[in-house]
Amino acid sequence: MGAQPGDAAEFTDLESAAMVAALGAAREGFRGANPLVGAAVLTADGQIVTGHHGGAGTPHAEVDAITTAHDLDIDLSTSTLFVTLEPCAHHGRTGPCTEAIINAAIPSVVFASPDPNPLAAGGGSILAEAGLTVRSGLHEEDSRALNARWVRSMTEARPFVTAKIAQSLDGAVAASDGTSQWITSAESRVHAHEVRSRVDAILVGTGTALADDPRLNARNHDGIALDDQPRPVVLGNSDLPVTSFLALNPNTLHLPTHDVREALDQLHAAGVRHLLVEGGPTVLGAFFTAGVVDEVFCYQAPMLIGPGRSSVEGLDIGTLQDALHLVPDDTETPAVSRLGPDFLLHFATGT
Amino acid sequence: MGAQPGDAAEFTDLESAAMVAALGAAREGFRGANPLVGAAVLTADGQIVTGHHGGAGTPHAEVDAITTAHDLDIDLSTSTLFVTLEPCAHHGRTGPCTEAIINAAIPSVVFASPDPNPLAAGGGSILAEAGLTVRSGLHEEDSRALNARWVRSMTEARPFVTAKIAQSLDGAVAASDGTSQWITSAESRVHAHEVRSRVDAILVGTGTALADDPRLNARNHDGIALDDQPRPVVLGNSDLPVTSFLALNPNTLHLPTHDVREALDQLHAAGVRHLLVEGGPTVLGAFFTAGVVDEVFCYQAPMLIGPGRSSVEGLDIGTLQDALHLVPDDTETPAVSRLGPDFLLHFATGT
Repeated sequence: MGAQPGDAAEFTDLESAAMVAALGAAREGFRGANPLVGAAVLTADGQIVTGHHGGAGTPHAEVDAITTAHDLDIDLSTSTLFVTLEPCAHHGRTGPCTEAIINAAIPSVVFASPDPNPLAAGGGSILAEAGLTVRSGLHEEDSRALNARWVRSMTEARPFVTAKIAQSLDGAVAASDGTSQWITSAESRVHAHEVRSRVDAILVGTGTALADDPRLNARNHDGIALDDQPRPVVLGNSDLPVTSFLALNPNTLHLPTHDVREALDQLHAAGVRHLLVEGGPTVLGAFFTAGVVDEVFCYQAPMLIGPGRSSVEGLDIGTLQDALHLVPDDTETPAVSRLGPDFLLHFATGT
Repeated sequence: MGAQPGDAAEFTDLESAAMVAALGAAREGFRGANPLVGAAVLTADGQIVTGHHGGAGTPHAEVDAITTAHDLDIDLSTSTLFVTLEPCAHHGRTGPCTEAIINAAIPSVVFASPDPNPLAAGGGSILAEAGLTVRSGLHEEDSRALNARWVRSMTEARPFVTAKIAQSLDGAVAASDGTSQWITSAESRVHAHEVRSRVDAILVGTGTALADDPRLNARNHDGIALDDQPRPVVLGNSDLPVTSFLALNPNTLHLPTHDVREALDQLHAAGVRHLLVEGGPTVLGAFFTAGVVDEVFCYQAPMLIGPGRSSVEGLDIGTLQDALHLVPDDTETPAVSRLGPDFLLHFATGT
């Protein structure tokens, strides 16, 4: 392979800064079916221009950075391209990045870590064979850490799992009489639909399906359903009324099981690479207990509900030492942000 | 009285900006026994210098702003002083502000709202009699809103009540086996001691006193007790072991009641103007139910504990419509901040 593993010593401070900028750009993307990737063009006179991958179907980070550099009339023939992940060599929903880089006539490429996806790997070699100077290993650990959860979900051949919790300050999703609409604000619900729009499938348990008759579709700010819809998934053995929204949707996948791993296997087989688990509390508890939650969005409304229903149920935790630790995640947005009166907390799960 | 009620029309844009700056400075203080007050010196050439009141025993806002103006060699004889609250005319722990203003030879004063404390009021008249131009009413509503809760606690002749909640993301203060140390981080505990150091008294129920044997003192970053200590208060009928920290502390006030209003009456009579309620869940629930919580600091650790003990118990809320709404409070610090891995949420109670 043409790419040479490098250590920090062979890179200049400016090159290191360019890769740090690329890593920062990567964090502007969001997690899901694809890894977080950032890129930076470093010009001969030290200018740094970044780009990042904004999600499935959008330009890859390298192409985003190259496009911006073109817009700024930057001379790419004397620049170096820094990418947090080895440039891909395959035709996915977008063309291979190796091709875009060669077409842009950039003479030199540095990537942080090799692509763990065997379908996409080998890009470094292709670039080297095309005559480019290719180096790698600069801030490799940071790039690996950034996508550790994505790699894990790939390795386990299951979807990347995002859990959504929408609760009161005292952790309730419903008051004691069952009322639950709405605890969180309109602003929070708009964000939740934005998250829905990036996933391949949205899962709820039969309890939620029966209680709420949800549509599980992604709607824009005006409440209009988007063209590209995630697949609704219902987990559990109960039948749904034939007139329910989910039963009427030919796309709905009903998985008659309570086994989370089995459900994930079936979803993976059905092509689901990013799954959003919306509840209810029993289903969320089952996914947390199975250790397969990769990311958590927790919408927290500033209210106390008192004796109601907990947002996550069935966690088998008897003592504080066994608590399930989450890690504030500053990817995409700061780990805490405000949505109207609510707080949105964004977490990774502990490793 | 010398001060003339004014309306916005009689003030210039620059004067309005100076009062807005004073209001902003007021928000840098913290709530408690004293109102939030800010001041701003507006110079003849449009420079604005602010000051604020940083808590009991520290210089009042006017003095703080005048001191800063002196340090900057600002000509006060051609400046106007803006204060969010009528300058006080009484000797409290610090001298009267009217005196400081007259001594500083400032010719003109604008205050936003009159002092609701009869002991401190009348400052406007004193300044006018001393020959100063005194106007009032600029951004009066904003100033009133800022201290509405303080005025309410004064009116009700009870302490200003700050509630502390330290919980997991799922609203628990203990795991099902009772383990609870520590849910929140060392950084959160340091902040909690900072809050303790500003109050007159810290209250817990006998349940917490018996379970934890707390000292309820304020300690600095190194764990050393501060010189000036809040008064420990225990609420409830159970006796404490004679060897417990609270029983051994001659300052401890044991209130053998479960009636929150009665307890507040006794505390007010004992000179307590700012009370911190630390728990446990039953006591917090009782204070929330009594509608006497003015401020909430909620330390939230990023973990799920599952079936444990709720942070607030005994709220008599049957349906979502009756939920107890809190209002994010950006006074002192933004309504949400981070303390190590934890989130600190700062709330006002609904009005």
